[in-house]
Amino acid sequence: MENAILLISCPDTKGIVAKVSNFIYQNNGNIEHADQHIDSETNTFFMRIEWSLKDFRIPKEKIAQKFSSLAAEFKMEWNLHFSSEIPVMAIFVSRHLHCLYDLLLRYREGQFKCKIPLIISNHSLAKDIATSSGIKFFEFPITKENKSEQERRQLQLLKENSVDLVVLARYTQILTKQFVDSFPNRIINIHHSFLPAFIGKFPYRQAHLRGVKIIGATSHYVTEELDAGPIIEQDVVRVSHRDSLEDLRRKGEDLEKIVLSRAVRWHLERKILVYNNKTVIFD
Amino acid sequence: MENAILLISCPDTKGIVAKVSNFIYQNNGNIEHADQHIDSETNTFFMRIEWSLKDFRIPKEKIAQKFSSLAAEFKMEWNLHFSSEIPVMAIFVSRHLHCLYDLLLRYREGQFKCKIPLIISNHSLAKDIATSSGIKFFEFPITKENKSEQERRQLQLLKENSVDLVVLARYTQILTKQFVDSFPNRIINIHHSFLPAFIGKFPYRQAHLRGVKIIGATSHYVTEELDAGPIIEQDVVRVSHRDSLEDLRRKGEDLEKIVLSRAVRWHLERKILVYNNKTVIFD
Amino acid sequence: MENAILLISCPDTKGIVAKVSNFIYQNNGNIEHADQHIDSETNTFFMRIEWSLKDFRIPKEKIAQKFSSLAAEFKMEWNLHFSSEIPVMAIFVSRHLHCLYDLLLRYREGQFKCKIPLIISNHSLAKDIATSSGIKFFEFPITKENKSEQERRQLQLLKENSVDLVVLARYTQILTKQFVDSFPNRIINIHHSFLPAFIGKFPYRQAHLRGVKIIGATSHYVTEELDAGPIIEQDVVRVSHRDSLEDLRRKGEDLEKIVLSRAVRWHLERKILVYNNKTVIFD
Amino acid sequence: MENAILLISCPDTKGIVAKVSNFIYQNNGNIEHADQHIDSETNTFFMRIEWSLKDFRIPKEKIAQKFSSLAAEFKMEWNLHFSSEIPVMAIFVSRHLHCLYDLLLRYREGQFKCKIPLIISNHSLAKDIATSSGIKFFEFPITKENKSEQERRQLQLLKENSVDLVVLARYTQILTKQFVDSFPNRIINIHHSFLPAFIGKFPYRQAHLRGVKIIGATSHYVTEELDAGPIIEQDVVRVSHRDSLEDLRRKGEDLEKIVLSRAVRWHLERKILVYNNKTVIFD
Repeated sequence: MENAILLISCPDTKGIVAKVSNFIYQNNGNIEHADQHIDSETNTFFMRIEWSLKDFRIPKEKIAQKFSSLAAEFKMEWNLHFSSEIPVMAIFVSRHLHCLYDLLLRYREGQFKCKIPLIISNHSLAKDIATSSGIKFFEFPITKENKSEQERRQLQLLKENSVDLVVLARYTQILTKQFVDSFPNRIINIHHSFLPAFIGKFPYRQAHLRGVKIIGATSHYVTEELDAGPIIEQDVVRVSHRDSLEDLRRKGEDLEKIVLSRAVRWHLERKILVYNNKTVIFD
Repeated sequence: MENAILLISCPDTKGIVAKVSNFIYQNNGNIEHADQHIDSETNTFFMRIEWSLKDFRIPKEKIAQKFSSLAAEFKMEWNLHFSSEIPVMAIFVSRHLHCLYDLLLRYREGQFKCKIPLIISNHSLAKDIATSSGIKFFEFPITKENKSEQERRQLQLLKENSVDLVVLARYTQILTKQFVDSFPNRIINIHHSFLPAFIGKFPYRQAHLRGVKIIGATSHYVTEELDAGPIIEQDVVRVSHRDSLEDLRRKGEDLEKIVLSRAVRWHLERKILVYNNKTVIFD
Repeated sequence: MENAILLISCPDTKGIVAKVSNFIYQNNGNIEHADQHIDSETNTFFMRIEWSLKDFRIPKEKIAQKFSSLAAEFKMEWNLHFSSEIPVMAIFVSRHLHCLYDLLLRYREGQFKCKIPLIISNHSLAKDIATSSGIKFFEFPITKENKSEQERRQLQLLKENSVDLVVLARYTQILTKQFVDSFPNRIINIHHSFLPAFIGKFPYRQAHLRGVKIIGATSHYVTEELDAGPIIEQDVVRVSHRDSLEDLRRKGEDLEKIVLSRAVRWHLERKILVYNNKTVIFD
Repeated sequence: MENAILLISCPDTKGIVAKVSNFIYQNNGNIEHADQHIDSETNTFFMRIEWSLKDFRIPKEKIAQKFSSLAAEFKMEWNLHFSSEIPVMAIFVSRHLHCLYDLLLRYREGQFKCKIPLIISNHSLAKDIATSSGIKFFEFPITKENKSEQERRQLQLLKENSVDLVVLARYTQILTKQFVDSFPNRIINIHHSFLPAFIGKFPYRQAHLRGVKIIGATSHYVTEELDAGPIIEQDVVRVSHRDSLEDLRRKGEDLEKIVLSRAVRWHLERKILVYNNKTVIFD
């Protein structure tokens, strides 16, 4: 049974919920999930509404067109998705493979409704697991000199595979503005700290040095500024003076897997809205 | 500025959101918060919708009447509240006063929109704090013989003070069916364990004996069956072999205060719906 | 570099720490970790002490003998381990394979210092992953009639493989007293609830029905009584009315993996002492 | 019954535990708690050992002298405390009184073994609660011009009252180096963020702006550099897009109270050792 999913943000005013829900009701749709949020500081209205297309009177391919006048009336930014669409996801990884393994396991267990046609890495370590999972593997060694050219080739590959979502599962290369701009709010990164603490390359080392009593992991959309994009999810675990740097890494990796997988699932299920460099999660 | 708050539950069907939001929109109301939930197992629809009465065309005192035909159409159970209503809360307490102190502090800080005209206890220990807070204090010593009569007098007092909500802030007496039936879903208890584990009088002792690694606290509505009513909130804290029974108590009391205060606040803000001995929390 | 690890429990009295640490010091050992605990209720002393055997004057094979008179003086229960010993672990699993996958990944990443020569199941589902991991797989279908005989054959297999530790990674068969008695405090189970709540077969269903706001997982040593053995580790995750039974399962499985893996690691690193159906964890 | 508590840190080498425990044993002391830690990166040994003075052969007033030669042998930094000593604590507070209230409640409940003779503030708001608690209250309005002089007078007051520990319970003035140096590792501050994130004056505002999904609180010893001293304790709570800045504050204040009270209790119970701008907590 197919559902339609509408994601909306617009200036808040009277009548939005009434008119959107009427649009669905009068065309004989049955709402299965609906969630809204008003950000009172910026007077912005957000909505995610999902309804069954069973007996819906507007044919699927005409829904967007029919909805667009209503959208215009309220100056909406909006996206229409269908549960039958299967997004295409590419995974980027470097030497630490725990997140990759975890994503692939969840994929196999059916936790992610998507296709994963390719894995890209700047190293060869992930080749075996990619191959044995029946996923194409591409190695792009990166140097200062070739970075721009390699990214261009990566983008070409993503385009050829119709990739919707790029997941950086501990990918150590910083993407250029050009790359990031090609996938706005469609690149998810896992950072191994409780952002905004410990930005950069060695968060566990910094956390150990600072003597924090709790460490964290953060999944976020990638923007041009390093580790500064909209935060999707965070989680933490307690540490103590007994924990070595190695212990922090081990404990942190369990967080990374969970925090990244939640972000990926919510994105694939169209549960995330981005505004003001923040996220609204309609889980 | 006054708001109206509508809490609805009914069998799920097409058009509920559309008709409810139209009712508000066509009468010139501006929705400030709305949240809904569909329990797909029982096909039940739940909604909390809050709108500003500024320029609303139906006078406050006629809203219920005007809404009732729509409510009947969908076989709704519903409650209408107004932000101007100030609920009246009575606190019951025995010898452990930490939750009482905490509630009174939050009350003073303005976290609870309510009046607290009276504190009732089966002991005299809370008398001083009640008096110094300007709240009437009533001591009802309870024995097997006088319990029924004392409860009758307590109910009389609650009635005279127009009490809406009874909060058992570590009150050790088990209320009779007669008392509980007088306040359906309007008695909140704090139980010092992670229910359904460790029901009864000595949860910390049981937790210590069992050697659990995490302890908890649970706030719930009181029903006839002991510690078995709809759970409103729970929270937990880690313990270890180093923690004595006394440590469990100390750690647990911090949980109790927080878990009880969340439940009280949500209840006062009309954010809780009860069904099937469970709660929907629209926070 | 090899270490010796001594686990001690005995009635508490003066001089234990002094005499044990003297034993090590006078024989030129360097303590690398030491932890002790006194349970004041039962007046029991617990200790885990680990020292380097570099330049230790007593040959490794004679340490136990030399220590035994001191142990007798204090009526110690004690175990001596060496870091060079590699314990042998067998995994039992049924149809839910997430914990098995997780254990094998951690094993590959070097988190567990052990050998895993065999996986045993009452189903065939785990065969492929066992085989592709280079681990022997044995299927023992269990019926009421053959249970006793199958367990006898399983025990035989464990004996032939010199198995030290049995891990029940979501194994659905209840082990008989005869089996449990063969591995006292050496069978670790993962139970998918926050014990002692929701004992038995369907904890997620029970949790969903009861409307709890937090779910948990518990790893424990297996004793004769179902789900009642010494708790090693627990962890929890928040749920809400929005979570379906399926969501509880998904969230819970992440807990199960982590909670089981911590217990296995601590056991392999000789960090667990059991007494009074509880555990002391010297992590 | 009186106990002695010894806190030790020194370069790690063979024989420390043996010699310290012998010192106690040979003088007929009974160890009630002992905990040690070796920081392998810096090769530093830490110990907290607590023993009963019942039948101890060295008179209390001579223990330090007798121990000093052993201490010298191992180049120990060490402190000797007695359970009969009652430390003197001063509380500094500004306009936000929730932590002050919380500390005073715990003090009354017997959670802190200390005296609190005075409360100091740069505002008058805390005067009533101080007075009604029978604690002297001193108001020191601070301006750029008078800061140095006011601090001098505050220090004089602390000296007259033999204050051991200064607790900054949301005190908004930044202490000068001169003040901080007078109480090395004896000033505890509560910072309302998960340090090192959101240093400075408006952490909740910053957290809200950044869109974090978890907020925290941190208690730490005060050093010259703002919010950069040794972290004693941290805790966190989940937030979402639904939480306004006011919600963050309310949730955060519950954290602040708990995180500050843990730090104060551990300090008073001599459970904290500081090194390398980090803490070892022997709880």
